[in-house]
Amino acid sequence: MAIIVQKFGGTSVGDVERIRNVARKVKAEVEAGNRVAVVVSAMAGVTNQLVAHTRDISADADPREYDVVVSTGEQVTTGLLSLALHEIGVAARSWQGWQLPIRTDGVHAKARIEDIAADDLTAALLRGEVAVVPGFQGLSADGRITTLGRGGSDTSAVALAAALKADRCDIYTDVDGVYTTDPRIVAKARKLDKITYEEMFEMASLGAKVLQTRSVEMAMKHRVRLQVRSTFEDRPGTLVVDEDEIVEQELVSGIAYSRDEAKVTVAGLQDRPGVAGAVFGPLAEANINVDMIIQNISQDGKTANLTFTVPEGELRRALDVLETHKAGMRFERLIANADVVKVSVIGVGMRSHAGVAQRMFQALAEKGINIQAISTSEIKISVLIAEDYTELALRALHTAYGLDSDAA
Amino acid sequence: MAIIVQKFGGTSVGDVERIRNVARKVKAEVEAGNRVAVVVSAMAGVTNQLVAHTRDISADADPREYDVVVSTGEQVTTGLLSLALHEIGVAARSWQGWQLPIRTDGVHAKARIEDIAADDLTAALLRGEVAVVPGFQGLSADGRITTLGRGGSDTSAVALAAALKADRCDIYTDVDGVYTTDPRIVAKARKLDKITYEEMFEMASLGAKVLQTRSVEMAMKHRVRLQVRSTFEDRPGTLVVDEDEIVEQELVSGIAYSRDEAKVTVAGLQDRPGVAGAVFGPLAEANINVDMIIQNISQDGKTANLTFTVPEGELRRALDVLETHKAGMRFERLIANADVVKVSVIGVGMRSHAGVAQRMFQALAEKGINIQAISTSEIKISVLIAEDYTELALRALHTAYGLDSDAA
Repeated sequence: MAIIVQKFGGTSVGDVERIRNVARKVKAEVEAGNRVAVVVSAMAGVTNQLVAHTRDISADADPREYDVVVSTGEQVTTGLLSLALHEIGVAARSWQGWQLPIRTDGVHAKARIEDIAADDLTAALLRGEVAVVPGFQGLSADGRITTLGRGGSDTSAVALAAALKADRCDIYTDVDGVYTTDPRIVAKARKLDKITYEEMFEMASLGAKVLQTRSVEMAMKHRVRLQVRSTFEDRPGTLVVDEDEIVEQELVSGIAYSRDEAKVTVAGLQDRPGVAGAVFGPLAEANINVDMIIQNISQDGKTANLTFTVPEGELRRALDVLETHKAGMRFERLIANADVVKVSVIGVGMRSHAGVAQRMFQALAEKGINIQAISTSEIKISVLIAEDYTELALRALHTAYGLDSDAA
Repeated sequence: MAIIVQKFGGTSVGDVERIRNVARKVKAEVEAGNRVAVVVSAMAGVTNQLVAHTRDISADADPREYDVVVSTGEQVTTGLLSLALHEIGVAARSWQGWQLPIRTDGVHAKARIEDIAADDLTAALLRGEVAVVPGFQGLSADGRITTLGRGGSDTSAVALAAALKADRCDIYTDVDGVYTTDPRIVAKARKLDKITYEEMFEMASLGAKVLQTRSVEMAMKHRVRLQVRSTFEDRPGTLVVDEDEIVEQELVSGIAYSRDEAKVTVAGLQDRPGVAGAVFGPLAEANINVDMIIQNISQDGKTANLTFTVPEGELRRALDVLETHKAGMRFERLIANADVVKVSVIGVGMRSHAGVAQRMFQALAEKGINIQAISTSEIKISVLIAEDYTELALRALHTAYGLDSDAA
C-alpha cells in the first residue's frame, strides 16, 4: 500500500464548496488503496486578512505573536476538511503542528522545518485514517507556534512526505503542471511531463511561482517524488524527479523570469584592492541579497563602476546602507533602476553542450534587446534586460530553444 | 502586589480599535502596580462565522473537529492583544490553552475545566509580563483541543483566577454591572454595588445573561472575588462576594426572567403509584431538563394531569420522547405551550423572612396576572406566567420589593 501526501493551496480550499471538492479528491486516493496524509493552506484571503489585523495594530509586530495570529487560518481548514471527509464516509482527523509536533527553528514568521515526528501519523494512517495537517505552521524548541513564511505549505507537504517516507507528494494548485515558461505570456508554452529536481529548483529560484524554492530543495535532498497538478481538472501534472528518470533530456527545459529585480550602480569608485569588499560587506551585514555583479574600469583607469542587482523590495534599504557607508567606500554617486527583469534559461542538458549561452545572446540581439548583466551556473544562464522587453524576450527564447508546442 | 485577572468579551474586542482600548485598560492595572492576566474571547462575530462554516459542511459535525475550528477565534485575539500591549510599552505574551495547559474533560464542544497548570503563567507574571490567555478553549486528556461551549470565557477567567490565587477577577462587558432587573424593561432598575455568590448564581441560572452560570458556581467554590464592569465606561461595577461582606442585606436583591421556557401538560394519566417516574424517566434518559412540576388529580379522581416546564429548545424533543413512550405511560393527550415566561425573585434575605412569596403572589394578582406554576428554593421564588405579561410583572414586582431607584 502506497503512502501519498496531497497538498492543497489556498485557492483549492477557498470556500466550503471547494473544500468538499478537495475531500472528494482525497477519497479517490483512499479508494485507490492508498494511505493518505493531506496538507492544507488557509482558505484564500484568510491569511491576508489576519496579516492585515496585525499590521493595523503594529507596524513592527513581534513575530511570535504574529505567528499565533496567522497560523490559525490553516488550523481552520484542517478542521473543515476533516468534517467534509467524515460527510462522505472517510475516516479522518486533524493534527496541528504542535500536536505532532512539526519541529522548526525559532526564527518566527520564516521558520525552517527541522523534523516532523511522524509516529502518531503513521499509526493513524495504518488504522486507515486520513491525516489532515496544516501547512505553514510548526513548533519551536521553546514550545511556541512558528510559521514558515508565505508559501511555506509546499515545504510542509514535502517535509511530511519525507517523514512518512511517502511514495509521492502531490502539490495540487490552480495550474495543471510546470510549463516551459509562463503560458500567460507565451501561448506556445508546453506543460512538462517531467522535470529534474535541479531544474525545478532553478525555475523556482529564478521566478517561476508554481513551487516554493525551499520545498524543491527539500524534495531534492530527501528524494521525494513531487507532482504538481491541478485541483480543478483531473489529469496528470508534472513530475519532479531524478535526472535518470528522464530518458530524453532537452538542452533547455524552461525559461523563467523575475520582475522583482533592481539594478544599482555604484559609480566613480576609486579602483583599489578591497573595494568590492568595502561595498558588499555592509550590504551583507544588512542581510541584503546581492545577485548579479559587474565591475567596469572607467576609461581613465582610475575609477571603477560596480553594478549589481538586489530584490526590488530591498532597493531602498540597499541605497540607505550604501549612503551610510559612503565615506569608507569613496564613490561618486549611486544610480538605481528598478525597471529591469531577469530572464533565465534552465536545463540540465546544457552541462554537456556548448553554445547554449551563445544561442541566447543571439536570439536577444536579433530582437534588439540589450543585455545589462549576465550570470551563469552549470544549468542556467540569466540575463538582466529592460523590463519593457520581458514578453518579447520570453517568446524569442522559447522559439530559439525549440520549446514551442506544435498545437498553438 | 495584587494579582488581577481581567476578562474581555467579544464585543469588547470587536475590532482593532477596541482591542487597543482593552490594551489601555490592561496597562492601567499594570501601572497601578498589579500583576495582570487577561482572558479574551473571539472578536464579535468571528465564532458565529466559524460555526457557520462547520454547519455548512456538516449538520452533525464531529465535535472534536468543530473544536479545532471554533477555538481559533480566541487564539487570534490573544495574539492581537499582545501586539497592542507591546505597542504601548507593556511586556506581554499569549498562552494558548494547550501551552499551559488548561485541562478539561473530553466532552468536546461543552467541556468542563478540570484544572489549569499555572506555574508558567505565575513565573511570567513575576517577571512583570502580562499573560494573555484565550477563553473558551482547553486541552483534553488525549491531547486534543476542546471548547467549553458558548459563554465559556467567563468560566475560563474564573478558573484562571482560582489557579493564580488572584485577588480579583474583573469581567468586562458591555453593561456596567449587575442590575436589580433588566434595565431595558424596568427603567427604575438599579445597579447593585455588591451581590452574594448564591444570589448571582440564581440570577444567572434563572435568566440574567450578565455572567455564565458555571463561572459563578466556580467563583463560589473557589471564593474568587468577581467584579462585573463596563469595558466602555470607567466606573466601578458590581462585586460578587461572600454574604458576610454585605452589611445590609435586602430581602430581595434582584428579579430575573427567562423566556426560554415551554410548558408541557400530560393529560389524562392513570393515577397510580409510579406514574411520575414513568413520565420523567424517559425524559431524564433523553437528557432533557425538566424544571417546574405540578400534578393535579382530575375531578373524577381517576386520572391525573402532570404539568412541567422544559427549555423551549428542547420542547420538540420532549414531545417526541413522550409520544414514543405513550404505551408505558398511558396518557390521553399532550398539551404544549411555549408562550410562557419564568419570573424569579432572588435574595438571601428571604431565608430569614416570612411573607416574601406572599408579596409576590399579591403583586401579580393585583395586576391580574395568573400564576401557572411555582417553584421555590431557599433564596428564590419562581413563577410561570403568560409571556405577554413579562414587562408588567417585572415592573410590579420591582416596585413591590422596594427595588425602584429614586433617580428614575
